[in-house]
Amino acid sequence: MKHTAEILCVGTELLLGDILNTNAKFLSNELAAIGIDVYNQSVVGDNHDRLKAAIELALSRVDILITSGGLGPTLDDITKETVCEVLGSNLVYDESVKENIISFFKRRGRPMTENNLKQALVPEDGEVLYNENGTAPGLLVRKNGKLVFMLPGPPREIEPLFVKMVLPILKNINPDRVLVSKNINIFGMGESSVEALLKPLMESSDNPTVAPYAKDGEVLLRVTASAATESQASALIDGKIDEIRKFVGEYIYGIDENSLQRAVVERFTKRGLTLSTAESCTGGYVSKRITEIPGASAMFGCGVCSYSNEIKEKVLGVRHETLEKYGAVSPQTADEMASGVMKLSGSDVSVSVTGIAGPDGGTDEKPVGLVYICAKFKDKTMSETLNLGRTKNERQFVQYLAASSAIALALKITGEFNA
Amino acid sequence: MKHTAEILCVGTELLLGDILNTNAKFLSNELAAIGIDVYNQSVVGDNHDRLKAAIELALSRVDILITSGGLGPTLDDITKETVCEVLGSNLVYDESVKENIISFFKRRGRPMTENNLKQALVPEDGEVLYNENGTAPGLLVRKNGKLVFMLPGPPREIEPLFVKMVLPILKNINPDRVLVSKNINIFGMGESSVEALLKPLMESSDNPTVAPYAKDGEVLLRVTASAATESQASALIDGKIDEIRKFVGEYIYGIDENSLQRAVVERFTKRGLTLSTAESCTGGYVSKRITEIPGASAMFGCGVCSYSNEIKEKVLGVRHETLEKYGAVSPQTADEMASGVMKLSGSDVSVSVTGIAGPDGGTDEKPVGLVYICAKFKDKTMSETLNLGRTKNERQFVQYLAASSAIALALKITGEFNA
Repeated sequence: MKHTAEILCVGTELLLGDILNTNAKFLSNELAAIGIDVYNQSVVGDNHDRLKAAIELALSRVDILITSGGLGPTLDDITKETVCEVLGSNLVYDESVKENIISFFKRRGRPMTENNLKQALVPEDGEVLYNENGTAPGLLVRKNGKLVFMLPGPPREIEPLFVKMVLPILKNINPDRVLVSKNINIFGMGESSVEALLKPLMESSDNPTVAPYAKDGEVLLRVTASAATESQASALIDGKIDEIRKFVGEYIYGIDENSLQRAVVERFTKRGLTLSTAESCTGGYVSKRITEIPGASAMFGCGVCSYSNEIKEKVLGVRHETLEKYGAVSPQTADEMASGVMKLSGSDVSVSVTGIAGPDGGTDEKPVGLVYICAKFKDKTMSETLNLGRTKNERQFVQYLAASSAIALALKITGEFNA
Repeated sequence: MKHTAEILCVGTELLLGDILNTNAKFLSNELAAIGIDVYNQSVVGDNHDRLKAAIELALSRVDILITSGGLGPTLDDITKETVCEVLGSNLVYDESVKENIISFFKRRGRPMTENNLKQALVPEDGEVLYNENGTAPGLLVRKNGKLVFMLPGPPREIEPLFVKMVLPILKNINPDRVLVSKNINIFGMGESSVEALLKPLMESSDNPTVAPYAKDGEVLLRVTASAATESQASALIDGKIDEIRKFVGEYIYGIDENSLQRAVVERFTKRGLTLSTAESCTGGYVSKRITEIPGASAMFGCGVCSYSNEIKEKVLGVRHETLEKYGAVSPQTADEMASGVMKLSGSDVSVSVTGIAGPDGGTDEKPVGLVYICAKFKDKTMSETLNLGRTKNERQFVQYLAASSAIALALKITGEFNA
């Protein structure tokens, strides 16, 4: 049986436009990955009548309802109460949830107020989905052929809770089939080019399915197979990935790899390589993205953000004549920046970035979005010229893609890109 | 009369979770700012029956419906057709829209295919809202006391179109009143503390209204007034802001200021001050955030990301004995890092950050989230100890807040924080 789900996010802050609805995206994405269709997403505030109407509408058209938000300790939070009203379920105190809440506050050394115990109320015919990052547990009620999941609102609570507690339940709705997905990480080729190259393969394949997603200047190809066992599904996927490699292999930097920065941190650490960075137009974005990965200190020691020419000369040793003759935005300056930071730090590998991030500062000869990157490793040098110019408002996009390209170049020069 | 609006976003990519629904946030935010309540946001795919049901439901409960998406040239795009079906409006070719489409393609030097002319079909009883960033115009139909706006999906089209073409119409729905909002930017005090301090003031004030929003570790207080003229509304707001200053004045860093980094770039540039940064646990996040602001090069020359002790000594001149005796995470090291980068760069002001971003590396004495920051300006030094430890997964949050605090310290030491 094909299942359909609806996502109902509860929160006035969403209706006021104060926050982005990352939960709807996250949940939809996860459901799509396991083949459950989502036809409607809705957002309502903490208002009894409108919330009740939304729950009733959803239950009239799908068999899986997932709510997020409105499980907090205050009087405003009414998701649980309203769902139970619609389902005809009673709320009762759950002792183990109560203990969890008390110990949660103890661990943090914060005082617990009485209203927090409201979160220990659970539907008597429901199941508790333990939340390790907050005091409101997730809840599940199975009734009248429907599954209703009530999940907390904060992304840092709902995301791990969904993956750990909800996904295993949903994956087993159809017990005779399992669904497995793997993501292929592609950098250096746009979504439309990937799609054009792979079109025949994508159209001729319905198990596994192959679907491309553009994400932050990268392309993610999701390969999903359905089979009787997990190992059979995995084997189908691996066969399909081998086929895909024939078309776009040189742009694949990982399978189920989280990001370029995670790839460089993990692979350099494994090989015992160290990296240093010299950045101009990215202003520290490369080092920021590398150091956001836990454990980066094992392979990253030094980044220099040499925004001015003076610092390029003084700290990185770029020659005055080079800056005079070719300008700060030039392959020659990129080269000397990479050499300079390597010398300064004694790292095995270095990368540099210099360019025009915009919105101003472009000329006909050197337009906004022109970026030079350079990498050094032993006696090797690799350089790239990037043309990232798009519309006037995309300074941060130029900076982001330039940083991605620099990290990719560090992987390429060490032979770790397609590793 | 009080108006209510509903936002209906059309797009399969939203239901698949491939993209974040930034349009719902943007539109809700804009509507809230002019006092129009949004009680429901919905998302449906490009499916005739579900789209029709969503339009009918929305029109049964609000007087302003705003759709985004589904105005493109392909057969999939059916928003316009379905809205017109529900409203009983005919679609007819509009010559001026057709000319715009043709000239749009000419300007970009791209070939136009026949299906693009589908975008020149407009409701015969409707109004065309010119879209300067794409080929699909926005459309408005006024019927049966309802306003239905159909807007394009891409954020870079809908956002300017809304501000230029839709906002003036909505602001004049109640021609006798205008609404004005100002945002107070607060850093260094949590949302609940701000709320507790301002509660009496917020409750006793319904024109202007005062509403707090937490955002990226900051608090935004939105003050909204309604009056006969804009200057009357502004005067009401300014009076309220003066009252608010009495309670939380020392934490207010701006009015309608976009971010801490924009404040530091603008204020330092105006005063002719230059800044340099020395970062350890933030790994370049401070310099990244400063250089994401256009024009940062006027006040920012140099950032050093000294992740390793060796680089702290070699590049920044932190003394070996200091690192030995107090450790890399210590106020003493923060102090020498700030001095070091100032000496290196010759900047007027410097800030430094050193701490434990986690998830590993914490001890009982120096737990995850312990961060020391230091700023120098002329003969002045300011230091702060931050305790940002929360759950295990929040490395990036610790780094973000530490970077915010460092930028705020640069503002404080120069007397520019409350400027």
